[in-house]
Amino acid sequence: MVGATLSRSEQQGLIAVAMLAADRASGITLAHFRSSGLRADNKDKGGFDPVTIADRDAEAAMREVLRQMRPFDAIQGEEMGYEAGSSGLTWVLDPIDGTRAYISGAPTWGTLIALRDETGPILGVIDQPFTGERFIGAFGKASLIRAGQRAPIHARAAATLDKAILFSTFPEVGSPKERAAFEALSARVRLTRFGLDCYAYALLALGGVDLVVEAGLNAYDIQAPIALVQAAGGVVTNWQGGPAHDGGQVLAAASKGLHTAALKVLAQA
Amino acid sequence: MVGATLSRSEQQGLIAVAMLAADRASGITLAHFRSSGLRADNKDKGGFDPVTIADRDAEAAMREVLRQMRPFDAIQGEEMGYEAGSSGLTWVLDPIDGTRAYISGAPTWGTLIALRDETGPILGVIDQPFTGERFIGAFGKASLIRAGQRAPIHARAAATLDKAILFSTFPEVGSPKERAAFEALSARVRLTRFGLDCYAYALLALGGVDLVVEAGLNAYDIQAPIALVQAAGGVVTNWQGGPAHDGGQVLAAASKGLHTAALKVLAQA
Repeated sequence: MVGATLSRSEQQGLIAVAMLAADRASGITLAHFRSSGLRADNKDKGGFDPVTIADRDAEAAMREVLRQMRPFDAIQGEEMGYEAGSSGLTWVLDPIDGTRAYISGAPTWGTLIALRDETGPILGVIDQPFTGERFIGAFGKASLIRAGQRAPIHARAAATLDKAILFSTFPEVGSPKERAAFEALSARVRLTRFGLDCYAYALLALGGVDLVVEAGLNAYDIQAPIALVQAAGGVVTNWQGGPAHDGGQVLAAASKGLHTAALKVLAQA
Repeated sequence: MVGATLSRSEQQGLIAVAMLAADRASGITLAHFRSSGLRADNKDKGGFDPVTIADRDAEAAMREVLRQMRPFDAIQGEEMGYEAGSSGLTWVLDPIDGTRAYISGAPTWGTLIALRDETGPILGVIDQPFTGERFIGAFGKASLIRAGQRAPIHARAAATLDKAILFSTFPEVGSPKERAAFEALSARVRLTRFGLDCYAYALLALGGVDLVVEAGLNAYDIQAPIALVQAAGGVVTNWQGGPAHDGGQVLAAASKGLHTAALKVLAQA
C-alpha cells in the first residue's frame, strides 16, 4: 500500500488516527510539563540527551492507539524502537522532540507523528499542546488547528536569501565542517536564530521563517516536519538536494528559489 | 518617593496599573503577531534590529495608561524615549522584547513593564500574551497568571554548576571577550540553550532554568526580569557582582550559591 493509492476517505481516516494519537500524547506531556517532580535521565554517556517519563509514556499511549486502530501498520518510535507491519505504511513517532526545551519549561518542543510509505512521509503532525497549536500537513494540504479553529497555512514565497530568516537548533549544527557550511549560509541571510527544534519547521510552514538548516538528525526527528513543510508549499532535502527523510543533514526552505540558493551556498562551503 | 515607603495598598495599586498597561499592550501585539502584512523596519544600519508598528503602538498604549493613572511618574521606553516625572518612580517599558522572535512567529517574546526607584527595579512584569502567561515579580512575591489563575512561582535552589541549565539569547553573547567568558561557563554546565530573550528569565523565575547570562543589554531589557527573578528568590547582577539594572552584562542565577560559582568562572575567563 502506498500513499498515492489512498482514497479521500482513507486519507481522512489516517488523519483522524493521527489526531487521536496526538490527543493521547498531549494529556501525558502536559501533565508532566513544568512539574516539580520531573526527572531527566541521560541517554548519552558522552553528553546530555535527556529522556523523561513523559517521553516514554506518551510514546506508549500513541502506540496503543495505533495498534488498536491500524493493526497492520508498522511503528517506528524514538523510545521503543520498531514494530513490523504488513500494510506498507509506517507510523514514525517522536513523543517529545526538544526534550531539552521541555525540561527547561520552554513551550518550543513538540510531539511528532508521521506516516510514511516507501517513498517517504505522506502525513505529518507537529503538536504543541501548551500553546494549543497542532500543525498538520498531509495529502497536499497544511493547516494549523488552535482553539477548535482550523486554518490553512502556507510557507511564504517572497524572501530572497539576503532577506531570509534562518533557524537551527544548536549553533554547533553538526560536525565542524557542517558548522562551517551553516555559518557560510548564516552570513548571507538577514537573521539567524537558534533553539526551536521542530517548532522552527512549524513556523516555516506558517510563513514566519524562511529556512531551517540542521545536521545529525534522526529519521523520527524529521519525517513529520518534511510532510508538514511540503504540504505548506516548502521544499525539504538533505544538503545535496536528495531525500532527507532518513535523517542526517536537512535543508528546509519556504520556496524552490530559496532552496536552490541555499543549497548552492551549503555545497560551496 | 522610594519603593520601601510604599504601603500595601499603594503596592497593590501599582501592580494593578502594570496589569492594565500589559492588557492594553497585549491587544496590540497579538493583533499584529503572525499577520501577513507585518513589516519590520531596521533600526540598526550595521546589522538587523527590527521594529514594527506593534512595538510602537503597544508602547504608545502603555504610555497612555500610565499618563492617566500615574501622572507624576517618569516613563522610559525603548521606542519613545524618556518623559520626566516628579514622584521619584520611573516606569520602564519594552513593548516587545524579542522582536526577532516576534517577526518569526515564535511565542518567546514578551512585553516588559518595570517600575523603578533610585535603587533599581521594584516591580517587573514579563507578559507573553500568545501563550497567555503573565509573570509578575514585585515587593517580595513572584507569580504566574494564566487562564485567570494566579500561582506563586520560585526559582529552584537545587542545581550545582555541573547540573545547571544555562540560557542566553545569541551564541555570540557580546564582544569576543564576553563570548569567551560565556563559553568557559557553558563548558561547566549540563546544558546550554539559546534563543529566548526575556522568556529565559521567566523560566528561571518558574524553576525550569538555572542561569541566564547575557551582555550588551539595554536598561529597558533587564529591569523587569531583575524584579521578577529577585522576587522569585534568584540573584541578578552584572558579571562583576554589581547592579545590572543599567544594562550591559547580566548574570541571573536561581540561587546565591550558583550565582557565586558562575561569577567566579566568568571573572576568571
